[in-house]
Amino acid sequence: MTTQILPWSSSLQGLPLLRETHPDWIAVARADLRALLVDHAHCEQKAASQALSLIGRFPEDGELVRSMVGLAAEEMRHFRRVLDWIDRRGESLTRPAPDPYVQELRSWSFRRPGGLGARVDLLLACAFVEARSCERFRILAGSLLPEEGELRELGGFYLRLADAESRHWETFRNHALRHGPEEAVAARIRAMADAEAKVVSRLPVEPRMH
Amino acid sequence: MTTQILPWSSSLQGLPLLRETHPDWIAVARADLRALLVDHAHCEQKAASQALSLIGRFPEDGELVRSMVGLAAEEMRHFRRVLDWIDRRGESLTRPAPDPYVQELRSWSFRRPGGLGARVDLLLACAFVEARSCERFRILAGSLLPEEGELRELGGFYLRLADAESRHWETFRNHALRHGPEEAVAARIRAMADAEAKVVSRLPVEPRMH
Repeated sequence: MTTQILPWSSSLQGLPLLRETHPDWIAVARADLRALLVDHAHCEQKAASQALSLIGRFPEDGELVRSMVGLAAEEMRHFRRVLDWIDRRGESLTRPAPDPYVQELRSWSFRRPGGLGARVDLLLACAFVEARSCERFRILAGSLLPEEGELRELGGFYLRLADAESRHWETFRNHALRHGPEEAVAARIRAMADAEAKVVSRLPVEPRMH
Repeated sequence: MTTQILPWSSSLQGLPLLRETHPDWIAVARADLRALLVDHAHCEQKAASQALSLIGRFPEDGELVRSMVGLAAEEMRHFRRVLDWIDRRGESLTRPAPDPYVQELRSWSFRRPGGLGARVDLLLACAFVEARSCERFRILAGSLLPEEGELRELGGFYLRLADAESRHWETFRNHALRHGPEEAVAARIRAMADAEAKVVSRLPVEPRMH
């Protein structure tokens, strides 16, 4: 396997994450691409729903609203493309499993007060979800691109998506930075990064995006 | 005021609705276009969210899933255009008010068992929401198009949206028809039309889409 074509020196490059995904994950994911793609499709659908829900919750934040409309549209395009992959493989979308990663990340702020309010914590939780997806897309790209045929093509798909998800993490971080002093937001990001690393190391290694 | 340019003989044409919107509504709506546009923006956002939520709830229904991705994308384009109107008028999006129309329509099926299951009732509730929006868009188009300048332009906007919403009502009805015998679905539509007419006549006349 060769990864020299990838533009990142490590799967964590430029991301706020403290811990790499477990090294066994890629084998587990590749062994059940059906489950992985179904989970991925639901992640895109949930990301689009979350973006729309932020519009309903903070409608007076015009900058956030415009940005979330664009982000939701992009996540839905991704959803459609993941669906295309599922169809092409002769598989079909099934029900989403519960998502303990996202639930734990979202509820972290309630267990860890002292932040900059619910909006900043919610934006940062979204930022970490995007960052972790980005890391896993990079790992998938690195593992699949050296293959041939359909797997290589899927690797190319994940290479392009990784770029989108790294932009999205920055989008959410930048919105958070509009709602608190830079140093305080940075401190909250470090605290959440620590919590995220613990969540990700506690969860089982499964063919999922989180 | 002239309505001869409109392609409908009545605001209810082709829709499953039994009762026209109260004749005072158009004056109330025009007297507070700011409130109307804000309510409309939230309706588009909620329609997109609802479409995504149907994907999460019935992922194995491939036909519904593909159709809802397209519909959500279209509702979000509409949302953006309503936002443009709000911006252009120097106004801004504010918090959504509770939506008793949609709540009552959705909960109707629980108070009125004997339907074809939760999926059909949910699809039909969505169909009626689209149908009522369509009727109000037609009324707005009929009232605003004979004006000049910005109001005429807004009338043109509603003329185009009315067409989209009438397609959406058919989309939801057609999905419902895939999940039950035609005559049974038609009977459920008649029962829900009766309930919808009661809801709409009970609610106050306000600058809202429902």
